[in-house]
Amino acid sequence: MTLKRKIRVGMIGYKFMGKAHSHAYRDLPFFFDLDVEPVLQTLVGRDAEAVKTAAEKLGWLSYETDWRRLLDRDDIDVIDIGTPNSSHGEIAIAAAQAGKHVICEKPLAMNAQEALAMWREADKAGITHMICHNYRFVPALQHAKRLIDEGALGEIYHFRAQYLQDWIMDPNFPLVWRMRKEMTGSGTLGDLMAHSIDLARFLVGEIKEVTGMAETFIKRRPIGEMAGGLHAVLSDEVVMADVDVDDAVAAMLKFENGAMGVLEATRFAQGNRNSNRIEINGSKGSIRWEIEHMNTLELYLKDDPEGMQGYRSINCTEGVHPYAGAYWAAGHPIGYEHTFIHLVYELMQGIASGSNPSPTFEDGYRNQVVLDAIGQSALTGSRIETTYESV
Amino acid sequence: MTLKRKIRVGMIGYKFMGKAHSHAYRDLPFFFDLDVEPVLQTLVGRDAEAVKTAAEKLGWLSYETDWRRLLDRDDIDVIDIGTPNSSHGEIAIAAAQAGKHVICEKPLAMNAQEALAMWREADKAGITHMICHNYRFVPALQHAKRLIDEGALGEIYHFRAQYLQDWIMDPNFPLVWRMRKEMTGSGTLGDLMAHSIDLARFLVGEIKEVTGMAETFIKRRPIGEMAGGLHAVLSDEVVMADVDVDDAVAAMLKFENGAMGVLEATRFAQGNRNSNRIEINGSKGSIRWEIEHMNTLELYLKDDPEGMQGYRSINCTEGVHPYAGAYWAAGHPIGYEHTFIHLVYELMQGIASGSNPSPTFEDGYRNQVVLDAIGQSALTGSRIETTYESV
Amino acid sequence: MTLKRKIRVGMIGYKFMGKAHSHAYRDLPFFFDLDVEPVLQTLVGRDAEAVKTAAEKLGWLSYETDWRRLLDRDDIDVIDIGTPNSSHGEIAIAAAQAGKHVICEKPLAMNAQEALAMWREADKAGITHMICHNYRFVPALQHAKRLIDEGALGEIYHFRAQYLQDWIMDPNFPLVWRMRKEMTGSGTLGDLMAHSIDLARFLVGEIKEVTGMAETFIKRRPIGEMAGGLHAVLSDEVVMADVDVDDAVAAMLKFENGAMGVLEATRFAQGNRNSNRIEINGSKGSIRWEIEHMNTLELYLKDDPEGMQGYRSINCTEGVHPYAGAYWAAGHPIGYEHTFIHLVYELMQGIASGSNPSPTFEDGYRNQVVLDAIGQSALTGSRIETTYESV
Amino acid sequence: MTLKRKIRVGMIGYKFMGKAHSHAYRDLPFFFDLDVEPVLQTLVGRDAEAVKTAAEKLGWLSYETDWRRLLDRDDIDVIDIGTPNSSHGEIAIAAAQAGKHVICEKPLAMNAQEALAMWREADKAGITHMICHNYRFVPALQHAKRLIDEGALGEIYHFRAQYLQDWIMDPNFPLVWRMRKEMTGSGTLGDLMAHSIDLARFLVGEIKEVTGMAETFIKRRPIGEMAGGLHAVLSDEVVMADVDVDDAVAAMLKFENGAMGVLEATRFAQGNRNSNRIEINGSKGSIRWEIEHMNTLELYLKDDPEGMQGYRSINCTEGVHPYAGAYWAAGHPIGYEHTFIHLVYELMQGIASGSNPSPTFEDGYRNQVVLDAIGQSALTGSRIETTYESV
Repeated sequence: MTLKRKIRVGMIGYKFMGKAHSHAYRDLPFFFDLDVEPVLQTLVGRDAEAVKTAAEKLGWLSYETDWRRLLDRDDIDVIDIGTPNSSHGEIAIAAAQAGKHVICEKPLAMNAQEALAMWREADKAGITHMICHNYRFVPALQHAKRLIDEGALGEIYHFRAQYLQDWIMDPNFPLVWRMRKEMTGSGTLGDLMAHSIDLARFLVGEIKEVTGMAETFIKRRPIGEMAGGLHAVLSDEVVMADVDVDDAVAAMLKFENGAMGVLEATRFAQGNRNSNRIEINGSKGSIRWEIEHMNTLELYLKDDPEGMQGYRSINCTEGVHPYAGAYWAAGHPIGYEHTFIHLVYELMQGIASGSNPSPTFEDGYRNQVVLDAIGQSALTGSRIETTYESV
Repeated sequence: MTLKRKIRVGMIGYKFMGKAHSHAYRDLPFFFDLDVEPVLQTLVGRDAEAVKTAAEKLGWLSYETDWRRLLDRDDIDVIDIGTPNSSHGEIAIAAAQAGKHVICEKPLAMNAQEALAMWREADKAGITHMICHNYRFVPALQHAKRLIDEGALGEIYHFRAQYLQDWIMDPNFPLVWRMRKEMTGSGTLGDLMAHSIDLARFLVGEIKEVTGMAETFIKRRPIGEMAGGLHAVLSDEVVMADVDVDDAVAAMLKFENGAMGVLEATRFAQGNRNSNRIEINGSKGSIRWEIEHMNTLELYLKDDPEGMQGYRSINCTEGVHPYAGAYWAAGHPIGYEHTFIHLVYELMQGIASGSNPSPTFEDGYRNQVVLDAIGQSALTGSRIETTYESV
Repeated sequence: MTLKRKIRVGMIGYKFMGKAHSHAYRDLPFFFDLDVEPVLQTLVGRDAEAVKTAAEKLGWLSYETDWRRLLDRDDIDVIDIGTPNSSHGEIAIAAAQAGKHVICEKPLAMNAQEALAMWREADKAGITHMICHNYRFVPALQHAKRLIDEGALGEIYHFRAQYLQDWIMDPNFPLVWRMRKEMTGSGTLGDLMAHSIDLARFLVGEIKEVTGMAETFIKRRPIGEMAGGLHAVLSDEVVMADVDVDDAVAAMLKFENGAMGVLEATRFAQGNRNSNRIEINGSKGSIRWEIEHMNTLELYLKDDPEGMQGYRSINCTEGVHPYAGAYWAAGHPIGYEHTFIHLVYELMQGIASGSNPSPTFEDGYRNQVVLDAIGQSALTGSRIETTYESV
Repeated sequence: MTLKRKIRVGMIGYKFMGKAHSHAYRDLPFFFDLDVEPVLQTLVGRDAEAVKTAAEKLGWLSYETDWRRLLDRDDIDVIDIGTPNSSHGEIAIAAAQAGKHVICEKPLAMNAQEALAMWREADKAGITHMICHNYRFVPALQHAKRLIDEGALGEIYHFRAQYLQDWIMDPNFPLVWRMRKEMTGSGTLGDLMAHSIDLARFLVGEIKEVTGMAETFIKRRPIGEMAGGLHAVLSDEVVMADVDVDDAVAAMLKFENGAMGVLEATRFAQGNRNSNRIEINGSKGSIRWEIEHMNTLELYLKDDPEGMQGYRSINCTEGVHPYAGAYWAAGHPIGYEHTFIHLVYELMQGIASGSNPSPTFEDGYRNQVVLDAIGQSALTGSRIETTYESV
């Protein structure tokens, strides 16, 4: 029996996303038959003690404290970037130049210019490059994509998305890195609305025009989390700092195919821990989806017989649904972590076949163009036409 | 026993809204104890035969073919205007000048200028004046208002509304009056989003800034419905005409109290016959409501004990809920028509007591200012600050 | 113009059901075109002052204090019986013998023997006779019936019903007439499960075998409500009495067509003010319905394309849905009271045409046979085969 | 650093449950910190080629073709039984006698007598013994248990459960082992209702009285799946055989604490792939749960303020919810497989500490007593009081 080709991963960052990615690499071969096999080769973090502990816990074979070490190591095939946004560009470009495949967390960069540079470098290097828009990989949304591609919804008129959270509503919640512009570029815009924009592009198409609005409800917060060079005075006194990113953002879009989009993202929606939801209306039908009922796709078809029309709740856990056949019998729910398993499934397939599965750095770039335009429009109050460059 | 004072109504228009209002006047005394009693005195329509038939069917004592006749009749206390929007202003102003109380369908006018004139005249006349934003009168939303006023939701951060319909998606659906600018002023904006704006103002507060986007998906339609002077060629040929109003509209709002609003209205959302829904997020809690489950208010309270937090579904059919005690036992649903019963309940109370219940013509005017600004912003692509005049 | 034939109603009882029936007679002509017209001729109650007030409030032309007076009056065409169960038999039989049409609240009688006598007498008299199982007349359930009759669900395997309330869970809630066997015959069995049995018979077919279980959770209660001869000691002391009916009942059924039924009714289900819900599973499809979303029929069809199967939520407010076209535009909900409008619509049609619309006294009798058998089985713990007599 | 004690598993069977258990052992250490570590030591199956392939795929270190080999091997600490029901007893008793810990799929045995023998033997051997009622380990249901234990629901009046599937509704679906009495003991009774009974006992308490009803809708089926000695004639002819187990079963229960239970299990409920749902009503509150929204517990509390009472939807993915803190951030759903992770977490904890976590073989025995009584009552049509023996 021929052994499977091993794809050795070096991953930078081991917090929430690091955990999700680690689990996906480990769990992938159990559920899916692939010609290749991911190996959790090296985990990278700056704090030697912490990264060592994480590597043991998450199942990595070794660890490093400097991500540049990955570039020279022959036993690393792909670099997985799970660091704060401000370092994505530098790492991805260096990785591509070193000939490593790259998978990068979203948003791809601090701005479209940087994203373009990343895509250009990745393209030039001929590597496989992906951005981690995991929500695309929910079976219900893959099924939606298939239905849309088959024309089941007809011409698309509306895309509607809300991504609602509530974890920073307490004014005493500290200024963690996700609320610091120098590390993130933006607040909910890049963190949450980036996901909605990816779903919009995945399911509806390219965006040609945007108008934005943003708000920061809590203007100053206590300094917390020392990450990234922010120093608190070492005393009992609470030190406050300005919040320089958005707490909430809204956008109105026009797609190239004529559809309208209305998007909203916020961390100030009490009762919504992680409410990611979309709706699409087309000339022949509509869909609705939300993460709380992740496996359910609601589908309306106007050609159903009169009197029998209505949204149907499709439990996308059957063999016929994308990815679902790999798991349990129909009707047995899967969860959030499986979106990452599907993502790294595509990554491994891409590397194995030398292809470039979606979403690529180009997707990351185009997403970033839209993010930038929304951010800019929120400042000026004026509609912006997006323009996209090629590499 | 003293007889109840009779409030004699003259109503103009007898289609959908005319039916709803007629029923409300008839049904009101059955459920509510009032010191006054509405009388369905005269129904007005231009077509003598049709208005006669409608008057019999809907239970009116007499009919007229010219609304101006109402002005002189001593047996008319209040004029109910259910005509297309283009005639609201003329009728309402004449009615006020004749000293009649007035209730007018929404939107109040063709534009804010006209609405202001109507409000001014009504105010000067000292009459009771109301605009028919019936959705305010859903018990679940009255209950929401009470909760918000009591501070249960804390400071409001977000208002989110969609009003989705699908009745004109067929390109062969004719150009009825609701799609003709000269009769309506706008399409979904004044017809549907006006309702959402009323709920926004009722539940959150005044709006100070708007950005809008609008779209007409089907640009030309067959001429249908002869109302209002549009003449079709008398042949078998289908005659097409331009659609000059919006099929869909979106808006982003800023409220005076700092809250953000995101609104959308469309007649192109397959599967949504009449989906009117709102969400509000505040510092202490959130609510959700939609017309399909009209009697249910979903409420989230952040101060619920840890681990037991979640949206609760309150069936607003209990004696303690606004208006609900007038009907059946708890748990027995009421329907759409009851919103009009509550509306005319307030009207009758207002006339009886000489007061001016909400929503008044001032509400209609302020609503219209927002509508105009959204329409204007949709054209220019720029954010607009609203300004409101007083009478 | 020929005047419509008037059908003059004499109604006995004016509490909850009396209000619902009164409203239905009044509201019927507004929504439906009929060749006949109901007249609220006379309301009957024992307390002269109270019945007079009720007659004024509910819109009756006159009142009586002795129901026997109705028998002799020429201006009464139909007698509507809304009294406690113990008097149904006597009144209905006398009414039939006097040649009056009869409509009677459910359950029809105190036991099957009495119900049979009522049916026999009504049949002999050749009158129109109906029992008030109003839930049949929910448009969504009429639509379900039509679908089942057309074979959309195929062979029926399962009927599942719960009727859950919570209004007597407080041990201090008094022993009102609905908890006194001499006036009701049973507790939840005849009050709530009778409705589920009617839906079972309406939608699935005749029942041939039952097993029952019943429970009284609160065995003694304070005496309240003096109705029906129960005398409390006139002192501050709380006087307690035994509860001699069921607080909750369950039943397992076998239908003649082979289907299984599982039913449950209780007044001890916290959070369920009036939760009436059913499910039916057949070889080709399934339905689900519950009163809280009264206008929605959930329908599953196994022949939907693979991957697109799921329960669809049909909002039964369209012109094509039974009774729904009489009301508002699609998507506008109707409520509980409309079930009674549809019921009296059928009654009026039946009287006008000399026919006998379902549900008739035969339905009431067959329902009562099942109720009796469940009650008996609950006592003995043994399965019972039902037998039905004919008239 | 001291290495963790390894718990070496030998597992028999590798189909659906074998896959679920294998995954749970593999995934457990990633999410939970334990002092011990499961090792997937040996997988057992009769077909050498098939078990070898399965062992590779599922991640087992070795394989065997005779389960008796596990008894002698020193490197096996615990035996995991995932075979058809007819072999549970023999294997479990032999394993216990060999001093191995045992975890066994449900139902525990072919009948209560056998289950008692298994429990007795396990008890005598002093091993850790568990039965795989995985649904207990849904965080939402663990949370429900905690709430009930704390008295949040007060005195329990009602337990209501349905376990609905639809996978054998096609009359051409073959007679697989789950429909053959000699291998299973019963049909839906032991396969599905056993789960509901476990939840009943877990959440409400012991059952003292049952009445049952059962049905086999399709009486003969084509012979399929050769497992277990059923031989089909080798020709093109379809060979039919009798179905000797129930397609559907219903039961009414009385609990020792006075609560009523109504249960139903079926494989003939179109549209329900795997609908496992329960409701509990108590004097102070109620809960509802269903697997399709696995992470949501619906909770009603009667002591909520008037007008604000309603079922609340608790998304049990927060740190405070049982097991949930091991996974992702609040609001990120987990799936079916996690119930098995929690189950083997308890198993590992039990073995590590020498304790016997629930559900034990005693739970399996008591469950089996109820199953037997329901099956017996379904035959006779008479209520049965359950009696339980001790070891």
